[in-house]
Amino acid sequence: MTTKEFITANKDRFLSELFDWLRIPSVSADSKHKQDVRKAAEFLKEKFTAAGVDNVEINETKGHPIVYAEKLIDPSLPTVLVYGHYDVQPPDPLNLWDTPPFEPVIRNEKIYARGACDDKGQVYMHVKAFEAMMKLNLLPCNIKFMVEGEEEVGSDNLGDFVKANKAKLKSDVILISDTALISLEHPSITTGLRGLSYMEVEVTGPNRDLHSGVYGGAVANPINVLCNMIDSLHDKDGKVTIPGFYDKVAELTAAERTDLNKAPFSLDDYKKELGIDEIKGEKGYTTLERTGVRPTLDVNGIWGGYTGEGAKTVLPSKASAKISMRLVPNQVSAEITELFTNHFKAIAPPYVKVKVMAHHGGEPAVTPTNSDAYRAASKAFEEVFGKSPIPTRDGGSIPIVALFKKELGLDTVLMGFGLDTDALHSPNEHYGVNNFLVGIETIVAFYKHYAKK
Amino acid sequence: MTTKEFITANKDRFLSELFDWLRIPSVSADSKHKQDVRKAAEFLKEKFTAAGVDNVEINETKGHPIVYAEKLIDPSLPTVLVYGHYDVQPPDPLNLWDTPPFEPVIRNEKIYARGACDDKGQVYMHVKAFEAMMKLNLLPCNIKFMVEGEEEVGSDNLGDFVKANKAKLKSDVILISDTALISLEHPSITTGLRGLSYMEVEVTGPNRDLHSGVYGGAVANPINVLCNMIDSLHDKDGKVTIPGFYDKVAELTAAERTDLNKAPFSLDDYKKELGIDEIKGEKGYTTLERTGVRPTLDVNGIWGGYTGEGAKTVLPSKASAKISMRLVPNQVSAEITELFTNHFKAIAPPYVKVKVMAHHGGEPAVTPTNSDAYRAASKAFEEVFGKSPIPTRDGGSIPIVALFKKELGLDTVLMGFGLDTDALHSPNEHYGVNNFLVGIETIVAFYKHYAKK
Repeated sequence: MTTKEFITANKDRFLSELFDWLRIPSVSADSKHKQDVRKAAEFLKEKFTAAGVDNVEINETKGHPIVYAEKLIDPSLPTVLVYGHYDVQPPDPLNLWDTPPFEPVIRNEKIYARGACDDKGQVYMHVKAFEAMMKLNLLPCNIKFMVEGEEEVGSDNLGDFVKANKAKLKSDVILISDTALISLEHPSITTGLRGLSYMEVEVTGPNRDLHSGVYGGAVANPINVLCNMIDSLHDKDGKVTIPGFYDKVAELTAAERTDLNKAPFSLDDYKKELGIDEIKGEKGYTTLERTGVRPTLDVNGIWGGYTGEGAKTVLPSKASAKISMRLVPNQVSAEITELFTNHFKAIAPPYVKVKVMAHHGGEPAVTPTNSDAYRAASKAFEEVFGKSPIPTRDGGSIPIVALFKKELGLDTVLMGFGLDTDALHSPNEHYGVNNFLVGIETIVAFYKHYAKK
Repeated sequence: MTTKEFITANKDRFLSELFDWLRIPSVSADSKHKQDVRKAAEFLKEKFTAAGVDNVEINETKGHPIVYAEKLIDPSLPTVLVYGHYDVQPPDPLNLWDTPPFEPVIRNEKIYARGACDDKGQVYMHVKAFEAMMKLNLLPCNIKFMVEGEEEVGSDNLGDFVKANKAKLKSDVILISDTALISLEHPSITTGLRGLSYMEVEVTGPNRDLHSGVYGGAVANPINVLCNMIDSLHDKDGKVTIPGFYDKVAELTAAERTDLNKAPFSLDDYKKELGIDEIKGEKGYTTLERTGVRPTLDVNGIWGGYTGEGAKTVLPSKASAKISMRLVPNQVSAEITELFTNHFKAIAPPYVKVKVMAHHGGEPAVTPTNSDAYRAASKAFEEVFGKSPIPTRDGGSIPIVALFKKELGLDTVLMGFGLDTDALHSPNEHYGVNNFLVGIETIVAFYKHYAKK
């Protein structure tokens, strides 16, 4: 029986298991889901056991637990460490979901649910690829799995776990499926990831909410002030104005820019798919460059004053915003966080007080394209897709990649099977059933080629 | 028995009745309180009946009902029409209240509750002043009462009611207690009120929330765009940039400005009481001018993206704000609403779509200081406070004043007993027990002097 035949024969069971996992609302950002996050970890532990690992543990942390499993067949064979995460983003705004985020359904051959792609669906491909290799006696090397529950909130406790378990985690390469393909017709491997600094700011004017009639015009309105401060963070060319922000940004060579822009991309399709008439970004760069190799600053949330039904004539005491910056090599998250903090305090006018708080950060990373593991991944894609994959830069962040390099000295292969249009972090997140199945097949092929190195 | 003796003898009952009324959460802006608003109207009807009116009605409207009551003792005597409102502002943010907004308590001789001053407390002074005049046989003229339940949401249905009931409402003057004194040591009568245009805007970028890593930097973020648009509504001198905004503003003469600035005012006390280091406002005007005679624009609320606990890396589809403008003579609310709408649409960049919606408006008003009624009010203050009142301009809006002039041809006397520090529309709204009692006494004195005209 071939891998493909095995996958086809077990397709329905694979999907129904994944659906059971997707039904657990493992929202790591929301403390009221703490028990659900644990349930999701225990579910995964069961499935690893059923698939035939030697050993599986739920490791406690200061936050959510880390699931570790391993199958060690021969110390002389190479060892692959698979990383993923079982926590998911908050589902709100709930009213924009066509079907409830934690009641997975298939529509037009896509699985709709929070976490369908990011990252439960992609992690589960590895669990099932492992099961397939065990059942078909195809496992050609040692495998270790480390799946965390805090990726969506900054992997705060993973660093400590990695540092404390270097021997246990000793491997030859890291394999991660938490990125996207250009399309099923254009396979790709992500070779660069952006870092992140995530901030929260609070601007306080008067010591209480005021009547906007009695005080309006005479007292600074913290919402107006916050809007002014946020607006000042970009110049007219779309560049971030924080002093020093670009100092360490690695500029691409003309050749690298040409390669990067070789990836198939249609601006018209892009605008059409997003429902926008025009794009906006840093002057002098293409869309692929803006998301792939340039740092950015976005307001992720803003709130202040009266936001309920109807009208309230209030001049509020406070206004707040969540602001995050995507970083590129060689920016350092902690440094950018400090630059932002100092700048935001420096531009605060005398009639308000500001508080700046850092949520979480992560370092940007670039993965090599000349390693055995990258070549094995490339061959696996060629075998399954009939096309060699295009190397791409991904705008998202997987801080763990830089951490692995630093703490374990290991390079990562980012073999993701999602699509940019899968609505990650958005209402109606989905994952193609075919992406899921083809992913399993490609992962099995990766091990075959990697063991032959 | 003197009026003062009667008030003192009945103080506890007056307060406990007012507390019962304040316990009814008559929040007109929030549809879930619809029945509470009606309960507050029925409570008032009972009290009018008990105080001895000839006739009291609850008049239905498309929105919340209008309570009308009258005591007609002699057609040859003058008739006073008392206006007020029994609806209140929403109480949020609830967490900032020291005691629950609808559980009135007295602390340091102040009544703490939503509506304590605005406007239940001030309306109830009129009910009890009427009761006192009835019990003490002091009623010197005819009285009509019209108390609405939609003042805090724009009095949408009062205009129709007034137009449909001109005969019933026929009177000689309007008396309203919904404004503030400079202080109990410095009695004042409000002679000018600002108008209002209250808008809501929505800025839409992409057709769904996006992952800020995958799309950040390449697609316009509607929150950043909204901040930029809001910021552009003021210039560096604090002037509103909407074309035509100031065209109809009546500039004061040097003499009028001098008079206006005679009112006792300490900038240090003002800043200290608000907990701010600096004030901010339109260049070239004093604080009393900025709140009294200059139009303003304030953001009353803003929201968009992820505002929950923790961090979510979303590039949101939409961002919204509630924006209101205070108007002065001779600006016209409908015209300013149109100027704002056209301008906000005109400045929208091509990469977003904007919606602009008008909540409610009201016209600015100036009341005469040379009328019999104003003189009677002035004498009443002198009699009770031992000082003649200072005419002031109030930053707030009571659109009904302009409506009365237009539809009934009647001038208004604004005999308010609140203080600017009463935290109207804010957490911990309060009203001085003494303001309440002195108000009743002054109102009774007003009728005496007005009847003598």
